Amino acid sequence: MVASFGFDLESKCRHSWARVGELHTPHGKVPTPVFAPVGTQATVKTTSPQELEELGVSLVVANTYHLNLRPGPEVIARLGGLHSFMGWQRPILTDSGGFQVFSMEHLRKIDGDGVTFRSHVDGSEHRLTPERSIAVQEQLGADIIVALDVCPPYRSDYEHNRVVLQRTHLWAERCLKAHTRTDQMLFGVVQGGTYPDLRGESARYLTSLDLPGYAIGGLSVGEPKETMHHMLDVTIPLLPEDKPRHLLGVGSPEDLFEGVARGIDIFDCALPTRIARNGTFFTSEGRLNIRNSRYKDDPAPVEEGCSCYACQQFSRAYLRHLVMAKEILGLRLATLHNLHFILNLMREIRTAILEDRFPTLKEQFLSSYKVVDDEVRMRDRKIWLNKLRASKEVAGD
Amino acid sequence: MVASFGFDLESKCRHSWARVGELHTPHGKVPTPVFAPVGTQATVKTTSPQELEELGVSLVVANTYHLNLRPGPEVIARLGGLHSFMGWQRPILTDSGGFQVFSMEHLRKIDGDGVTFRSHVDGSEHRLTPERSIAVQEQLGADIIVALDVCPPYRSDYEHNRVVLQRTHLWAERCLKAHTRTDQMLFGVVQGGTYPDLRGESARYLTSLDLPGYAIGGLSVGEPKETMHHMLDVTIPLLPEDKPRHLLGVGSPEDLFEGVARGIDIFDCALPTRIARNGTFFTSEGRLNIRNSRYKDDPAPVEEGCSCYACQQFSRAYLRHLVMAKEILGLRLATLHNLHFILNLMREIRTAILEDRFPTLKEQFLSSYKVVDDEVRMRDRKIWLNKLRASKEVAGD
Repeated sequence: MVASFGFDLESKCRHSWARVGELHTPHGKVPTPVFAPVGTQATVKTTSPQELEELGVSLVVANTYHLNLRPGPEVIARLGGLHSFMGWQRPILTDSGGFQVFSMEHLRKIDGDGVTFRSHVDGSEHRLTPERSIAVQEQLGADIIVALDVCPPYRSDYEHNRVVLQRTHLWAERCLKAHTRTDQMLFGVVQGGTYPDLRGESARYLTSLDLPGYAIGGLSVGEPKETMHHMLDVTIPLLPEDKPRHLLGVGSPEDLFEGVARGIDIFDCALPTRIARNGTFFTSEGRLNIRNSRYKDDPAPVEEGCSCYACQQFSRAYLRHLVMAKEILGLRLATLHNLHFILNLMREIRTAILEDRFPTLKEQFLSSYKVVDDEVRMRDRKIWLNKLRASKEVAGD
Repeated sequence: MVASFGFDLESKCRHSWARVGELHTPHGKVPTPVFAPVGTQATVKTTSPQELEELGVSLVVANTYHLNLRPGPEVIARLGGLHSFMGWQRPILTDSGGFQVFSMEHLRKIDGDGVTFRSHVDGSEHRLTPERSIAVQEQLGADIIVALDVCPPYRSDYEHNRVVLQRTHLWAERCLKAHTRTDQMLFGVVQGGTYPDLRGESARYLTSLDLPGYAIGGLSVGEPKETMHHMLDVTIPLLPEDKPRHLLGVGSPEDLFEGVARGIDIFDCALPTRIARNGTFFTSEGRLNIRNSRYKDDPAPVEEGCSCYACQQFSRAYLRHLVMAKEILGLRLATLHNLHFILNLMREIRTAILEDRFPTLKEQFLSSYKVVDDEVRMRDRKIWLNKLRASKEVAGD
């Protein structure tokens, strides 16, 4: 009998740490490496479950922080859990809620036992502990859940990172102890900031807990790409080979290649859908911002040869018009295109690993794809964070 | 040979003025009576052309005022016209642009020759004359276009209505003279405010121009429903029986029944899509506002037995969550449901006329459907107008 839960490693690249596998869950299989779109509030912004199925999405991430506040885990449990609530019958992963709470510096107080914070929706006071995070995630009922960790801000010093890492490890144990549902996989989160020895310690410690999977957190939070790659290089070899590895919150095209090459199996990221709503489309040559006036009369599709609905049916001129006129269809079409682009890229990557030509594909792709440089990336991040604060929203999709 | 253009009357109700017909256009047939969703900016807000086709939409209305300002008629003409631009291969009707310009009281100046106005988008000055309206509509390339008329505000006095009605008639002649494309039908617009003799004069005068179709304007602008019905009663019998009749900007369920019963063939209205974006769903019992907290845990669909995607796949609880969390999927699903409701109702009405049981269907529907009363309707209209002014937007969808 095939196990309804677990991870099968199918193939490994001979020239990198890249690997192909299959994750089994009560709601079906997830072929890895995989990209999971983010559905913060139990919806991948602008899309319907039917569209996600047609795009070939096999895993969706939902945010515990947001769903805990609105509509509340009791409501979702009463409606039969997240799958039934949002009409999505394929696998779901929920995060712990920690990332959002820690990012709201002005609204939360941390202690050894947990975090007290105010809701960004109505200002009400809430408490998040390892036990509470697991209880909420059990009510939501995702296939994969994540242990509550402490996310220190980027550039915090070694001593601070060392101290809070111990807390992350203790909380992982408390989560493991609190978790009762046998139809959910619990992932632990490797932390340690940008300090290789702390990352190594974290990987070793969490491995000793023999969890069904491992997430890597606290990366792509403002550090240079090289630092992120270095942290992956020192962490992943210490994680067990037969367990899935999830790089939290990372998902630009170049990051997918670099992560896969280092042995990552699962990625989730709001980037493709968030930049879509700003009129930015992924193409094989880099990002294309449709607001640029050069596209005003352009009858060509965003990307020649792309098989997505947006490229098959509409011109750059029409897409530009929709985005400039703030029409929802523009946001929808950009989202569909970007998800199609990323999911298609991931399928190509998977096939290339199976056919033993992943390094060639990586080189070919990155030679024509213009990567947004660190400086622009950090400026964009700052603008985004400021916008979030001004809108009283919190990090999500 | 079947004419590629024209109107065939197929059947008439024996107990009312209701009728069934078929409108032939270069982009296909439109079975009448028909409801046309409004796609102000070359998109029916939140929906894709594919979804509209699946809903059975056979005619879409686009607004000349908005498209003239953004992206501009030259852009649309260069992209091959409105059908090609927006990816909609079925029939389209454009209005004259007059309604929006006249509604922007603080931004326009009227003279005998036309109107000078400022753009609500960028403040730039523009001129709208009968010839300009036709030229723009020829560039847009819809199947049905509408003559520029003067829309006096509701409650303006008899003398004012009498004077501007002469202008409407002169402008209709100028439009007819200016119109050169042979693949477009030009509809004239009957005006005359709430004055029966002016309405009659207008119907007679426009009929004398032998236009391919007639629109009735200046109704549902704040007057009681009885007044609207009375105006239809005195106007429609004076219009030629073999030409299609379009009631501009009207389309609530009860209005469809009352309009059809008086001999209207075409309706267009932003109401079903606009109230959808406010979380209001049509049901056979009346309007349902999903924001109501009573739906928080409700596992039932919006309407039991409804075959639309929203009702087939999602609970009231989930739809409420989406709307409360300001998620685009909520706006999309409400829009799909309301369009499905109205289009389905129109199909039922058409079949009932063919089967000689329209009066029974009308009575049955209206006995269970709770109509929003005039007072609430006018309050809503005032709120909507104030919102429009505050947002610097203009009337549209």
